[in-house]
Amino acid sequence: MSLKSSQLQLNQQGQLRHFLGIDGLSRELLTEILDTADSFLEVGERAIKKVPLLRGKTVCNVFFENSTRTRSTFELAAKRLSADVLNLDVQTSSTSKGETLYDTLRNLEAMAADMFVVRHGDSGAAHFIARNVCPDVAIINAGDGNHAHPTQAMLDMLTIRRHRAGFEQLSVAIVGDILHSRVARSNMEALRILGCPDIRIIAPRTLLPVGIEQYGVRVFNDLRVGLRDVDVVIMLRLQKERMQSGLLPSEGEFYRQYGLTSDSLALAKPDALVMHPGPINRGVEIESAVADGPQSVILNQVTYGIAVRMAVMSMAMAGQTTQRQSSQGGQ
Amino acid sequence: MSLKSSQLQLNQQGQLRHFLGIDGLSRELLTEILDTADSFLEVGERAIKKVPLLRGKTVCNVFFENSTRTRSTFELAAKRLSADVLNLDVQTSSTSKGETLYDTLRNLEAMAADMFVVRHGDSGAAHFIARNVCPDVAIINAGDGNHAHPTQAMLDMLTIRRHRAGFEQLSVAIVGDILHSRVARSNMEALRILGCPDIRIIAPRTLLPVGIEQYGVRVFNDLRVGLRDVDVVIMLRLQKERMQSGLLPSEGEFYRQYGLTSDSLALAKPDALVMHPGPINRGVEIESAVADGPQSVILNQVTYGIAVRMAVMSMAMAGQTTQRQSSQGGQ
Amino acid sequence: MSLKSSQLQLNQQGQLRHFLGIDGLSRELLTEILDTADSFLEVGERAIKKVPLLRGKTVCNVFFENSTRTRSTFELAAKRLSADVLNLDVQTSSTSKGETLYDTLRNLEAMAADMFVVRHGDSGAAHFIARNVCPDVAIINAGDGNHAHPTQAMLDMLTIRRHRAGFEQLSVAIVGDILHSRVARSNMEALRILGCPDIRIIAPRTLLPVGIEQYGVRVFNDLRVGLRDVDVVIMLRLQKERMQSGLLPSEGEFYRQYGLTSDSLALAKPDALVMHPGPINRGVEIESAVADGPQSVILNQVTYGIAVRMAVMSMAMAGQTTQRQSSQGGQ
Repeated sequence: MSLKSSQLQLNQQGQLRHFLGIDGLSRELLTEILDTADSFLEVGERAIKKVPLLRGKTVCNVFFENSTRTRSTFELAAKRLSADVLNLDVQTSSTSKGETLYDTLRNLEAMAADMFVVRHGDSGAAHFIARNVCPDVAIINAGDGNHAHPTQAMLDMLTIRRHRAGFEQLSVAIVGDILHSRVARSNMEALRILGCPDIRIIAPRTLLPVGIEQYGVRVFNDLRVGLRDVDVVIMLRLQKERMQSGLLPSEGEFYRQYGLTSDSLALAKPDALVMHPGPINRGVEIESAVADGPQSVILNQVTYGIAVRMAVMSMAMAGQTTQRQSSQGGQ
Repeated sequence: MSLKSSQLQLNQQGQLRHFLGIDGLSRELLTEILDTADSFLEVGERAIKKVPLLRGKTVCNVFFENSTRTRSTFELAAKRLSADVLNLDVQTSSTSKGETLYDTLRNLEAMAADMFVVRHGDSGAAHFIARNVCPDVAIINAGDGNHAHPTQAMLDMLTIRRHRAGFEQLSVAIVGDILHSRVARSNMEALRILGCPDIRIIAPRTLLPVGIEQYGVRVFNDLRVGLRDVDVVIMLRLQKERMQSGLLPSEGEFYRQYGLTSDSLALAKPDALVMHPGPINRGVEIESAVADGPQSVILNQVTYGIAVRMAVMSMAMAGQTTQRQSSQGGQ
Repeated sequence: MSLKSSQLQLNQQGQLRHFLGIDGLSRELLTEILDTADSFLEVGERAIKKVPLLRGKTVCNVFFENSTRTRSTFELAAKRLSADVLNLDVQTSSTSKGETLYDTLRNLEAMAADMFVVRHGDSGAAHFIARNVCPDVAIINAGDGNHAHPTQAMLDMLTIRRHRAGFEQLSVAIVGDILHSRVARSNMEALRILGCPDIRIIAPRTLLPVGIEQYGVRVFNDLRVGLRDVDVVIMLRLQKERMQSGLLPSEGEFYRQYGLTSDSLALAKPDALVMHPGPINRGVEIESAVADGPQSVILNQVTYGIAVRMAVMSMAMAGQTTQRQSSQGGQ
């Protein structure tokens, strides 16, 4: 699937035209995304530049699964790019009149939308839309099932790169509910492509997916062993709402074994970065003192998330436009 | 009512200042709307121009009846005109605090709104607002009861005109649930004004309104007779949610008698256009192979719908401004 | 609290950086707000200027309590200032995923929001956020519990000033449910600071707060005595939804004793202004003939409300920016 997925995302010049997943993208392209995101951040401030890269374009947030937080970050990113934004909560929309997904999306495309930001509960939904429904609209995957959440992965990479020289010497630990996390999978792929030599997965056996070894990671069931001397700790959110009963240890038990506390963090390198995709469960997967402490870059991640989304949106729009122009020229 | 309705919509110079219905408008004015809409469409593309005609103006979508699809098209049209847009779902708004419709609208007007796009379940609601509540705000009718849906009619006219030389030689069939359709009535009026000599209505007796003959149409109860040699087929949506039980044939029975299939379409002219206001019920009023086939212009209608809405919004705003200036000059 | 609250709202140069309440602000500052608001109003029209004062800035409407009407006025004001606007209904947002208020707001700040417009059911919520959560974001109080509604007070002051020479000679009566009204308290403070010599409170004993005398007002239980020769009558909305049963007279009884009718209004000065924060309860606290009559400036208040909100938003953003620059320069 890697090659096909990569072909689907790129135009004939090898530029991004959809952003569906990390899988199959080159180190050069991921680096270009990070460089572009860097260019949107103001020096020394929390602020983000407003640029006219999507002026006159229409971005449609098509959310089949409610997520105010993710939708807000994409809406803000689109507005920073000067796009017009239409929010569509598809659960409450005309699909209730019996319209199919296919017809809903084709109609949106016909309303002259240039980009869809898609959130869907089914794995592969964004790929399906890009391949089979609206190939000429730039599709951005804002999370699909347990499969991928590629903009989250890229903002994590930006956070690491802005705080460390590069990826080549790093040990990075990803901790918690790997099984239900779309973030974990995208992060493992991005770290591997960017050359991180030591990716560690720390989780109880019941929260590990089958076949995790294919990602070239080291698996630990003991937090205190896994955290030793790492440069970066990426905590995952405990996806309570996704878990089936029985598999899950109690919250208290989970926190005692896998929660990131001042004590367990002391096993990592002294200046190790603490990251979390949010929203955090204080006292469930992370201690408040750590979440708010000097090593935490959790709020930086949020700011970088706007910049990364601006990067993939502007790059995909440019690649899609180039593709359209060269198709028209060739006919 | 025709004359009064026409006077209500026009300013003293005969320019549009509200857009409430087709009834009573001249062929010249309808042609001006179509010409203006044409000017917003990019050549050879699905794209629509962004123009500054409503820059600095505020458009309020006041929807008393939920319709995400219609609201989205008006929101996109307003943004393409560079207006600021406020969406108000009045069902959930302060009318729940006991405020009257009159007070809600007068307050919106006082918030410096320049235009209301009104959707209401009662026939004549938009006319009432333009005449009695807020005559100085440009009112656009986005559908009122079973009465009118004039922007839908104009986008249908634009679709026909862009695919055929004109209306003077055409046979056009409107098929399905005429009784509950605000689209059918507006379309019959528009076709008549634009000079279409052969308007055919095809429906079971139970789905025909009383007095249909006043529109100068020919009525058919047999689809296969009515479709013979027509240039354009406008299928209507089966308004299941509006029907009272008992009047309606079963879906299967309706499709067998009135559904547009490859077979029945073969009775029309070989290049007859297939139109539908959407959302379509596949296999209920139209066969999928026809909806997605080479004669279908259903998705073109959606694109043209943005352009037509831009046309009536920009024309009504201009006419309203002229009216206000001449009233002030005259006092 | 007055001094501390004032310090919290101002930067080191004495400019507004948050707008939380009237309490503790100087007459000069209130006058600057009114002058700034005046500058946004078009001469002789209901229209309001569009200005680029917040271009490139992001305003977040963070509403913990639903109020479509108030949210709409702030959204329109922000758009007139050319800001990007994000609406967040926090009741339905990720707080439902167990995120704390603190984390929600800190995340929004990290998304590069420059201003929060906050509506909350608890008194002091906006102060708390400005002091303890996000001091570097400009916080605008859009109503907190029964405590304050300072933009409403300032629009009332603007309405009075635009219809009367000044405040120094005026008698102003505030009538109705003082106990549950955030408007009443903010108005008493604003009138006192602006030098109004005769502020009258007219209400039944059961709808008066304890300690009302500290505001330097005269209290009347009899409407007909209290209204005598006043220049301005500010009617309050009967907050039915806030009242506990038993304290409240019946609506009919209330209207008979405290409703503003043509008869009772005749006791005020002949050209006395009639004001109401809206939405009005016709026939409960005010007679329709009075609400729609020649002395009513109720709809003017709505228009001025947009201008006043533009004033405090642009002033607070400027003061916050100055503060940030001088802090950075000083480090």
